[in-house]
Amino acid sequence: MTTTQPTTESTHRGRARIAEPGEGIGLDELALATRNHGMPLEALRYDVTPPGLHYVLTHYDIPALDPGSWSLELGGAVARPLRLTLDDLRSRPAVTSRVLLECAGNGRARLEPRPVSQPWLLEAVGTAEWTGTPLAPLLEEAGVSPEAVDVAFTGADHGVERGVEQDYARGLPLAEAMRPDVLLVWGMNGMPLPPQHGAPLRLLVPGWYGMAHVKWLTRIEVLETAFTGFQNAVAYRMRTGGDDDGAPVTRIAPRALLAPPGWPDFMTRERFVHAGPVTLTGRAWSGRAPVTAVEVSTDAGTTWAPADLAPADPAHPHAWRAWTCTWDAAPGPHELVVRAADAEGPQPTEAPWNRQGMANNLVQRVPVTVLDQPRGR
Amino acid sequence: MTTTQPTTESTHRGRARIAEPGEGIGLDELALATRNHGMPLEALRYDVTPPGLHYVLTHYDIPALDPGSWSLELGGAVARPLRLTLDDLRSRPAVTSRVLLECAGNGRARLEPRPVSQPWLLEAVGTAEWTGTPLAPLLEEAGVSPEAVDVAFTGADHGVERGVEQDYARGLPLAEAMRPDVLLVWGMNGMPLPPQHGAPLRLLVPGWYGMAHVKWLTRIEVLETAFTGFQNAVAYRMRTGGDDDGAPVTRIAPRALLAPPGWPDFMTRERFVHAGPVTLTGRAWSGRAPVTAVEVSTDAGTTWAPADLAPADPAHPHAWRAWTCTWDAAPGPHELVVRAADAEGPQPTEAPWNRQGMANNLVQRVPVTVLDQPRGR
Repeated sequence: MTTTQPTTESTHRGRARIAEPGEGIGLDELALATRNHGMPLEALRYDVTPPGLHYVLTHYDIPALDPGSWSLELGGAVARPLRLTLDDLRSRPAVTSRVLLECAGNGRARLEPRPVSQPWLLEAVGTAEWTGTPLAPLLEEAGVSPEAVDVAFTGADHGVERGVEQDYARGLPLAEAMRPDVLLVWGMNGMPLPPQHGAPLRLLVPGWYGMAHVKWLTRIEVLETAFTGFQNAVAYRMRTGGDDDGAPVTRIAPRALLAPPGWPDFMTRERFVHAGPVTLTGRAWSGRAPVTAVEVSTDAGTTWAPADLAPADPAHPHAWRAWTCTWDAAPGPHELVVRAADAEGPQPTEAPWNRQGMANNLVQRVPVTVLDQPRGR
Repeated sequence: MTTTQPTTESTHRGRARIAEPGEGIGLDELALATRNHGMPLEALRYDVTPPGLHYVLTHYDIPALDPGSWSLELGGAVARPLRLTLDDLRSRPAVTSRVLLECAGNGRARLEPRPVSQPWLLEAVGTAEWTGTPLAPLLEEAGVSPEAVDVAFTGADHGVERGVEQDYARGLPLAEAMRPDVLLVWGMNGMPLPPQHGAPLRLLVPGWYGMAHVKWLTRIEVLETAFTGFQNAVAYRMRTGGDDDGAPVTRIAPRALLAPPGWPDFMTRERFVHAGPVTLTGRAWSGRAPVTAVEVSTDAGTTWAPADLAPADPAHPHAWRAWTCTWDAAPGPHELVVRAADAEGPQPTEAPWNRQGMANNLVQRVPVTVLDQPRGR
């Protein structure tokens, strides 16, 4: 099977299921939720997310690859196809880059009606220090055809999705693949890339949702026609009806998240704080334009106040940014809401719906009960 | 608040909810499932589970502890209370031990009716190399009262559970706490303990379910009366009715798990293999007695065949053991089932039910479709 082979039109229309109104999460969604995992939101405290706390989404199984015998093929519409071992790649110039990743399906399980897939609430996010070598010089060495339009990246992860057996593969426009900050990555937070993050080698496309950062890379193929594989043509599109093609999912829309304050109830995750000044902190990001503001509401979105947004750090243009504000918490129930804006506009309080729940940046809402009794500890 | 203070009888009866027949997983259960995570079962391939793949369960939030200012208090019914910094502990004799951990709620979400709590399927398991110092010599230095019966371990994780605000705390019988293999742990797989696994210090009680291995330790208190805190008296008991006390959850019951063969469907996790010989592999363990056998059924439990069980490794008495067998897979649908036995008896194919879904070692069932077409790759 070649993964760049177009699948049939009928297969392309294989649709994800939409849950019935009020339908609980199914065992199929739960099986994905117990395998994959989000970043517990208290980990927003870390500038760089520890690897075991970073979100993980694996479409199929985590492949067992031997880094000693593994190699990467770079071919297709190039003058000089390459085959590269891990040692070949590691002998090239290395770059370490702090980059936020977010799954395109983040927030999906809060949509109504709910698209049935990996049921993320809001935790499918993380920021790591990724170490690798730029892709563009390798493409230049291979000699890309002047007719090239896309570059297809294929991983070793193999499975079936809506009836289509495949190795996970994504196409990326050539202009994006040639960006100097696009890396082939073998390290995470100063350690070898962990198995679940794509060992021995993954792609990093800063600013794009997670589906573009292909893990367990085995093949890079330059194409003179647009890539028509499943993960571009069927999955990761913003379809609203049953028959529209939908816009492709690309760059990360703006979002702010709050580290939930105080302490939780085990089962409901409801929060409790003591009355008085409470420091609220979190992170904000956008993959499409610089973040310009974060606003916080402590009355469920009726009124908003600006948060203090940390200045953009020129050393880490693709990392999230910290924000903070002080809340004078009065006893009683409250709903905290946060929203970011970037140079292209604000994060919507009502996110537009699509059939696969993709690129949905609805706002986080955190119910908090403020207690008036003195601190118990 | 002192966590060893008995809570009231009425609070002790605070009950976990049982799902209605056919009720889907709720958003509360999902919020736990997206924060915590199991070990993807293909990671059964690793003798030692990489930290980010090891199961994690956090009752409340992951605390932010500064290892530099953190210290451990050892007090209660002792002659000489101790206060120990991380440097104090690390200057003591260090031991590294390969130990399997399993959550007492593993398998809960497959029970009928379903206890509403962290909705584990079967993945709440992992084996790591834990580095720390034995607890018993510290208790001896402190001078344990001859009247002592329990040792209470308190973590920094703070929250509310069924109405009771608490720091997570567990009591352990003194005889167990004095076992030479019980450790105070600061390292995992040769690295500092990650935040989600209890940094800077956790308890390790080999052979017991995960609730005993208290994370983010701040205090150890020797008690002359039985510990009556929430996590021993209310949670982690095998109640079947509403009013019985239930037996306490202690040591891990025998279980075998199979690394699902072939490749999965993304959404259903159904497995596919090609016809012909298929090597089945997995792990088996028990915390109560040595594992004596693993059996495999490829016809949904009608017939069973013995698997090859790796010999017990005297260097790693608390690790899981590998098993393997060959399946001559004929085309069509099959259901694989595996079960372990230890010196005290076999793993039941129908697990006894209890209200909290605790210590439930029901068998794993893996539907597999065997394809008769030639390999596609």
